[in-house]
Amino acid sequence: MAKSKKQKIVVIGGGTGSYIVLRGLKKHDVEITAVVSMMDSGGSAGKLRDEYGYLPQGDTRRCLIALSEDSSFLRKLFEYRFEKGGVGGHNLGNLLLTAIRDIAGNEKDAVEEASKLLNIKGRVVPVTLTNAHIGAVLENGQVVVSETNIDIPRHNPDLKIKKLFIVPKAKANPEAIKAILKADKIIIGPGDLYTSVLANILVGGIKKALSDSKAKKIFVCNIMNKYGETTDFKASDFLKEAEKYVGKGVIGYVLLNNKKPAAKTLKPYESEGSRFIAPDLAARRVKVIKTDLLDYGNLARHDSDKLAKTIINI
Amino acid sequence: MAKSKKQKIVVIGGGTGSYIVLRGLKKHDVEITAVVSMMDSGGSAGKLRDEYGYLPQGDTRRCLIALSEDSSFLRKLFEYRFEKGGVGGHNLGNLLLTAIRDIAGNEKDAVEEASKLLNIKGRVVPVTLTNAHIGAVLENGQVVVSETNIDIPRHNPDLKIKKLFIVPKAKANPEAIKAILKADKIIIGPGDLYTSVLANILVGGIKKALSDSKAKKIFVCNIMNKYGETTDFKASDFLKEAEKYVGKGVIGYVLLNNKKPAAKTLKPYESEGSRFIAPDLAARRVKVIKTDLLDYGNLARHDSDKLAKTIINI
Repeated sequence: MAKSKKQKIVVIGGGTGSYIVLRGLKKHDVEITAVVSMMDSGGSAGKLRDEYGYLPQGDTRRCLIALSEDSSFLRKLFEYRFEKGGVGGHNLGNLLLTAIRDIAGNEKDAVEEASKLLNIKGRVVPVTLTNAHIGAVLENGQVVVSETNIDIPRHNPDLKIKKLFIVPKAKANPEAIKAILKADKIIIGPGDLYTSVLANILVGGIKKALSDSKAKKIFVCNIMNKYGETTDFKASDFLKEAEKYVGKGVIGYVLLNNKKPAAKTLKPYESEGSRFIAPDLAARRVKVIKTDLLDYGNLARHDSDKLAKTIINI
Repeated sequence: MAKSKKQKIVVIGGGTGSYIVLRGLKKHDVEITAVVSMMDSGGSAGKLRDEYGYLPQGDTRRCLIALSEDSSFLRKLFEYRFEKGGVGGHNLGNLLLTAIRDIAGNEKDAVEEASKLLNIKGRVVPVTLTNAHIGAVLENGQVVVSETNIDIPRHNPDLKIKKLFIVPKAKANPEAIKAILKADKIIIGPGDLYTSVLANILVGGIKKALSDSKAKKIFVCNIMNKYGETTDFKASDFLKEAEKYVGKGVIGYVLLNNKKPAAKTLKPYESEGSRFIAPDLAARRVKVIKTDLLDYGNLARHDSDKLAKTIINI
């Protein structure tokens, strides 16, 4: 007897990208696990990471917020940013997660307590419990270490990233491996390709788990490339880079937005060297789903609901 | 037909004193309103007060915590103090209340949101919604303004406080007046006599409400006097000073601890010039209840449960 089962969907990433996917998926009757990068080193989260020595909370925070009840007041507090005084620039969510981590005594219990507080739908799982940093070797051989230095970027932005690594070697959180192995669908991206998305893949054990998992692996290509990280990348470049780390033949689907944002939306991006990603991929080994995934607001990003529906219908 | 009604108890004060009374009362089937001083100007709360221009949160925070569920994780977060880095010294509760105040847009809604979050038993009511400071005229005519300057004290501690005032003139929160008028019992103190307790009485409208209210007014005398604020005060001095601001004949009961703390408990207090308060009051106009109210722990303070039981049985 066929029993209708909830889809188990694992979202791998961090930052705004995962936030958008999770916000959309949350509205559907599916089982969500967000596997999040723990390499954040900039801003409020980076500062607290340095001062307290805990794993960085920025990506965890965004995923927790994405999966929490929209109307919850606590969610507003987790999103709140102080603008003035000595705490100016600090995100209250990062401060709360630092305190929760301190009280809970370990990372696992901390994320669980925060999840309970925010009454989230689904689970948030740090990709690793090792305090590690991401690094990049540029095409001239220069080595740049730490997410914020690659992300901003604090290096010649015309040099491509030749190789990504993490230091020290980090072992995957067993919970992340378990979720990947049990999943029906695994969403990789969107988000900053190296610092948010592929940073997860480099964690020891994740690549093998992805390859072993029977889930459909869906790579969500970004809408805009990013100067200094993915300058002039086309969709085919994104897939090529992703496959370099995930392995050939693992990604089964690519979700590709084919709706160009309005000129006035693109303008601020273009002034920073970011361009609309040409949907140049043709289906070969990989199924390419080209469709309108665009949020018609002021930012050139994915629409949560369009993305979630497309994922669920695959 | 006589109907058994819950006692309506109003606790006027702030700081650790109100915290102790409320913790005890919370365990009983009574209706609690904490009317709290809004004059705090030191430490984490004072810093945020200066930077954000909101009413200070220190006393509100302590009362909210006292009335919240003991097992709640959120309560632990409201109590958490950062020890390191740029946020070191800040109390997370004060940061949360600042953010809540900013999001809520006004003081009244802010306290309500915080009360809901912490699921408190009873209500916390700021004595005033005016952003005011407490000031003192010393016996040599010197004027000292701001709670932290009087409390620490940053003046010659051998000079007595001749007159207390608040600046600018502050009007009572109508909710505080209403609670006082409807109360069965009103508890004044314990706590720093001038800066936590009497600061409330000076708010315009409170003195009259106390006098108009049919409630039993119970003054809880401190266990220790405080060098620079109530140096060498005996119980009779506390009552005399309280009556100077509350008015003669208003206070009907004085609760007086008659159990001296152990020598080793007293030692650190004595090195700071604080002494055990001699229970020298004899009943005359005022009923004096002398009993063991002492917490047998390491600090010379009231025992929450003994205090609550004594109050309820009056």
